[in-house]
Amino acid sequence: MPEEVITTLLNAGNVRIERVVSHGHASPEGFWYDQDDHEWVVVLKGAARVRFEDGIVEMKAGDYINIPAHRKHRVAWTTQDEPTIWLAVHYRDKA
Amino acid sequence: MPEEVITTLLNAGNVRIERVVSHGHASPEGFWYDQDDHEWVVVLKGAARVRFEDGIVEMKAGDYINIPAHRKHRVAWTTQDEPTIWLAVHYRDKA
Repeated sequence: MPEEVITTLLNAGNVRIERVVSHGHASPEGFWYDQDDHEWVVVLKGAARVRFEDGIVEMKAGDYINIPAHRKHRVAWTTQDEPTIWLAVHYRDKA
Repeated sequence: MPEEVITTLLNAGNVRIERVVSHGHASPEGFWYDQDDHEWVVVLKGAARVRFEDGIVEMKAGDYINIPAHRKHRVAWTTQDEPTIWLAVHYRDKA
């Protein structure tokens, strides 16, 4: 298995929904996501830690966070005991 | 418990994300949702049947459907054995 499998479930102009399956995946050292879109993300299964420049958020199944565009973040850790399944909703402000 | 509990998890202009917990809930006879927004909905837990004017879709955990605006639909059935948990993403076309 690759470390991370991303499947696009919906792609509709200003909204894109992805399922992400992580197998102990973490972002590479020094890497930051710096996205043009906002991202709302929920952990459906497993556990993860998301690092921001100002701290870490611990997430377990059912936990969700909203990440505004250009708020830098990285996946610091996902559990190796089981796959971590995320649902991510990428969206934009009204045009 | 009421039959259906809706919690808004995100409300951001053109995207609204809701968690819906159904306890054997079905839409009232003769009732149809006829929404101005598109709705992408996934069953996270449990099982359901969604009726459209031209048929029924059976859904179990992990199944998702995209319901374009004004496509009439109703919840025909949700399992009574356990709560059915949905995640619904309501969204609009680009302005």
